[in-house]
Amino acid sequence: MLTLEQSQRALAAAEAHAVAIGVPVNIAIVDAGVHLTAFARMDGAVLGAIDVALGKARTAALFRIPSESVWDYCKPAAPAPTLELSNGGLMAFPGGLPLTAADGTFLGAVGVSGGAPSQDREIAKAATQTL
Amino acid sequence: MLTLEQSQRALAAAEAHAVAIGVPVNIAIVDAGVHLTAFARMDGAVLGAIDVALGKARTAALFRIPSESVWDYCKPAAPAPTLELSNGGLMAFPGGLPLTAADGTFLGAVGVSGGAPSQDREIAKAATQTL
Amino acid sequence: MLTLEQSQRALAAAEAHAVAIGVPVNIAIVDAGVHLTAFARMDGAVLGAIDVALGKARTAALFRIPSESVWDYCKPAAPAPTLELSNGGLMAFPGGLPLTAADGTFLGAVGVSGGAPSQDREIAKAATQTL
Amino acid sequence: MLTLEQSQRALAAAEAHAVAIGVPVNIAIVDAGVHLTAFARMDGAVLGAIDVALGKARTAALFRIPSESVWDYCKPAAPAPTLELSNGGLMAFPGGLPLTAADGTFLGAVGVSGGAPSQDREIAKAATQTL
Repeated sequence: MLTLEQSQRALAAAEAHAVAIGVPVNIAIVDAGVHLTAFARMDGAVLGAIDVALGKARTAALFRIPSESVWDYCKPAAPAPTLELSNGGLMAFPGGLPLTAADGTFLGAVGVSGGAPSQDREIAKAATQTL
Repeated sequence: MLTLEQSQRALAAAEAHAVAIGVPVNIAIVDAGVHLTAFARMDGAVLGAIDVALGKARTAALFRIPSESVWDYCKPAAPAPTLELSNGGLMAFPGGLPLTAADGTFLGAVGVSGGAPSQDREIAKAATQTL
Repeated sequence: MLTLEQSQRALAAAEAHAVAIGVPVNIAIVDAGVHLTAFARMDGAVLGAIDVALGKARTAALFRIPSESVWDYCKPAAPAPTLELSNGGLMAFPGGLPLTAADGTFLGAVGVSGGAPSQDREIAKAATQTL
Repeated sequence: MLTLEQSQRALAAAEAHAVAIGVPVNIAIVDAGVHLTAFARMDGAVLGAIDVALGKARTAALFRIPSESVWDYCKPAAPAPTLELSNGGLMAFPGGLPLTAADGTFLGAVGVSGGAPSQDREIAKAATQTL
């Protein structure tokens, strides 16, 4: 069960990393039931990335995999084309990562958007390392 | 006219096959009017696959073909690109199959999601063989 | 954590009660995270009641109260008018009930629709008594 | 222009007040453009109140008035019945308040949900007093 304290710690770690690399992003945290627990939009992050951050967190929590792994299922010639249209639209690129407790329990997911996908991913990674 | 008894029999056959091959899935049954008659989420099936199972059943019932056959119409260079965006989003990959009576009457469809697409398809197949 | 076995037992108890009083209904079971675990539409239940049953289960799980208790908050002169427009539309009349374990743990909710609201409520009640 | 620092300060003040009165709530902050800047769900807040908190903040920011003031326009015999159906559904009861700078500049809004409407309103009030 993901607490607000854990969610805010994960969010703060992501924000600190984003500041360190100079990329303003949106950061969303959802619990194991895919419900929002915490969110922050850093000053200067584009508005379009709010929904993307929420979508990446949702995508990673719904399937319990990094958001970009969904693309392996739905990309051209992969076995599940159109999967990305499910669940109101998935975000199948880097920036969403599952959050897992030290004992391996699935806790939820973090979604980051605002930088380049690879930057979003490393910012999300910082969040995962706090639990 | 698909009855609840038929729907639950189809659902139970799918569930039994899923147990046999060790894959927790979501199973949805819809009638000829594309309305839900029965649903089951097996313990351990990912949350993201609920909507996918419903979508595969809907897709197979809407066009009265296996869900993956829709991809033949909308894949790159096929004659109906964007078809997958109709009807609130189609699921154009394996796991949705029409349900047909012994005399060929169309009864509805089953949708399965949670395993690899090929596993979902064989689990759905088990459901079709009960009618 | 609500299992499929518990969900199907609750659903079967509701169905048995509905048969006993001669009212065909739709029955939906959702878990504590408000995600569908089981559904059944009895033969003869009207199509419009599918979404109502799902909505009552969702409403009872979202607020952990009987669906009709939401009306106490949003009815004329009550303190929360328009609450019913939240969460994509709430169903604020009888037929949705929380499901609780013997030790008081919240497990999810059942939603029933197809009969008169008072009938839907007693059918839902039968489901709650199986856990 | 509402900063993340201001948003998190407002959110923390609301959370502190909610802790003080023992009511777990969801808290949402939106900017003058009605876009989310910060969100927190306190442990134990019901899931249904996430969307309500977001909706109250949205409602207060869209019209730059307390969320409950919208009810004065759309309540029975008021001049704008159905106004509550606009903008994807308004939340026209206490818990949403505009956020204003010391010089009167409109900055955005806070939305709180999880307690009784009067509690939600006083928690939201605590947020407004930080700017």
